[in-house]
Amino acid sequence: MKLFRFGAPGQEKPGLLLADGRKIDASAFGEDYTENFFATDGLSRLQAWSITNANTAPTVKDDVRLGPAIARPSKIICIGLNYKDHAAESKMATPTEPIVFFKATSSLCGPNDDLVIPKNSKKTDWEVELAVVIGKKASYISEAQAMDYVAGYVLHNDYSEREFQLERGGQWVKGKSCDTFAPLGPFLATKEEIVDPHNLRLWLKLNGKMLQDGNSSNLIFNIPFLVSYLSQFMSLLPGDVISTGTPAGVGLGFNPPIYLKPGDVVELGIDGLGSSKQVAKAYSGAES
Amino acid sequence: MKLFRFGAPGQEKPGLLLADGRKIDASAFGEDYTENFFATDGLSRLQAWSITNANTAPTVKDDVRLGPAIARPSKIICIGLNYKDHAAESKMATPTEPIVFFKATSSLCGPNDDLVIPKNSKKTDWEVELAVVIGKKASYISEAQAMDYVAGYVLHNDYSEREFQLERGGQWVKGKSCDTFAPLGPFLATKEEIVDPHNLRLWLKLNGKMLQDGNSSNLIFNIPFLVSYLSQFMSLLPGDVISTGTPAGVGLGFNPPIYLKPGDVVELGIDGLGSSKQVAKAYSGAES
Repeated sequence: MKLFRFGAPGQEKPGLLLADGRKIDASAFGEDYTENFFATDGLSRLQAWSITNANTAPTVKDDVRLGPAIARPSKIICIGLNYKDHAAESKMATPTEPIVFFKATSSLCGPNDDLVIPKNSKKTDWEVELAVVIGKKASYISEAQAMDYVAGYVLHNDYSEREFQLERGGQWVKGKSCDTFAPLGPFLATKEEIVDPHNLRLWLKLNGKMLQDGNSSNLIFNIPFLVSYLSQFMSLLPGDVISTGTPAGVGLGFNPPIYLKPGDVVELGIDGLGSSKQVAKAYSGAES
Repeated sequence: MKLFRFGAPGQEKPGLLLADGRKIDASAFGEDYTENFFATDGLSRLQAWSITNANTAPTVKDDVRLGPAIARPSKIICIGLNYKDHAAESKMATPTEPIVFFKATSSLCGPNDDLVIPKNSKKTDWEVELAVVIGKKASYISEAQAMDYVAGYVLHNDYSEREFQLERGGQWVKGKSCDTFAPLGPFLATKEEIVDPHNLRLWLKLNGKMLQDGNSSNLIFNIPFLVSYLSQFMSLLPGDVISTGTPAGVGLGFNPPIYLKPGDVVELGIDGLGSSKQVAKAYSGAES
C-alpha cells in the first residue's frame, strides 16, 4: 500500500494511492496514520478496509496539498555521513559506527510545501534521503529481527543549515530542526511495495540541474543494521522515522559551496517512492 | 498551581497538588496535560476548575505512582555544559553559545520510577536539572518576550550514558535517550509559583551522599536567553521541555569516575519543585 495525507496543514486526512494510480480519500477508515495506528496493526486494518471500500471512496484531486505522509511521530532519527562519497565531500571521516542525531518533529511538512529559509540563514542546504518508518515498538532487537519492525519507506529531504549545524557549538540539531526542514512524502510505501530497499536510486535537482544522484546500495550501514543498532540506545516507537543519510552532491560539497536562496526550486525522488518539490522562500514572519 | 500525573505507566491521570499539601485527582477536569492543553490555555481553565472543584475532588494517596508531570511533549531539548563548574569537571571548554541536544521523548518516566541501566552500559551517570516547560508556540521571540512563553518549571534528572554519549561517534543523543533516562517531576510548578527561577538550589544525592549541590544563579545562559535562542532555530511547541543543564558533581567528574550500579539510590531536588528518587536496576528484558 501507499499511504498519503492531504488537506490543510494540521488538518490532514488519510489517503491511499492505489495501484492504478488513483488517489482516494480514506477518511471513512476513521484513523490518521499516527503512532497508535501503527501500534495497533493499522496497516492490516487499512488493507482490509481498502479491499471493501477503495472502489467507492472519493477521489483526491491532484491539486490538493499533500501533508507529511504520516502524522507527527515521537522522533525523527537521522544518520549522519552514511554514504562514503558524502562523508568525503563533507571532509569528515567515514564513520566506524552510525552517527545519530535528531531532527525536531516540528520541522515536518508536506512534500511540496515551500521551504522557508530561516531568518539569519546563509547556508541552507539539501539532502535527499531514504527514510524508514517503524511499524512496532523496537527495543534491543537483533539485525535478523529488524525488518519485522519496519512499516515502510518514504522520501525525505533532510534540509540542513550548515552554519547552525557546524559552526554554532558542537551538536548538529540546531541546523536540522528549523520549521519546514523535513518534507516527508509524497507517500509511505509499505515494506512489500519495495523489493529491495538497498537498491534504490535517489536523486535531487536544484533548478533543474541534477546535483545528487546516488543509490541506496552504497549505504555504509544498511537498514536492518540501523534499526537494530538504534534499538540498543532507545526504544523505537511505532511511526518513528529513521532517515538513513544522504549521498554526495549537497551544497556544502561544492567549491565554492552552493546554498539556497529565495526562488530556488528543489526536486527530489527515490525509485518507488515518488518525488517531491520545494520552492525556497525567505522567512516573512507570516509563517507562525 | 502544581500539576502532577498519577497512575499506571501510559494511563496517567491529571492531578493537582494544592497549597495545603493535599493531592487531588483532577480527572473530572477532563484533560491530560498535553500539548493541546497548554496550547489552549489549559492552565487558566484548570485554575477555574480548581476554584470550584478542589475541595470536593478525590484525594490521591501518597503511595500512588507518579507519572511524568506532563504528557509526552513534542521534544525534550537539553542544554549542555551550562554551569561553569560542570564544564570544568567534564574537561570541556565553557561554551560561548548554548550547546543544544535532544533526548528522545521515549526516555520519559515518572519521578520515582526505577532507573533501568541499559544493556551493555558501563557508564550510566546522573544530572540534576531545572527544566522549563513551554506554554505556547514560540518562534523567533526576543529575550524580553521569552518569559511569556514559559508555563512553568519541573525537576528533571538528565541521565546520561557517558560511553554512548562521548565515545560512540560524535553526537550525544545516543547517551541521552535510553528508556527511563528522563524522570520528570514530581510536579510542574507554574511560573507564578517560583519567584526567581535563577536562584534555586538544586542537589543530588547518591546512596545518601550529597554529590551535586548547585544553584541556578550559576547558569551560564539563563532561561529567557535560552527560550529566545532556541526559538531562532526551531519552533518551541506548547508542552516542550527545555532542560537547562547540570551543575558540577556528576559521576564523570570524579577521579576515578563513579557510575551507577544496580541497587544504587539517586535522590534529587530543587527549591520549590520537590524531590524525586530513583533506584537503579539492571535491564532484565521484562521492561518492554
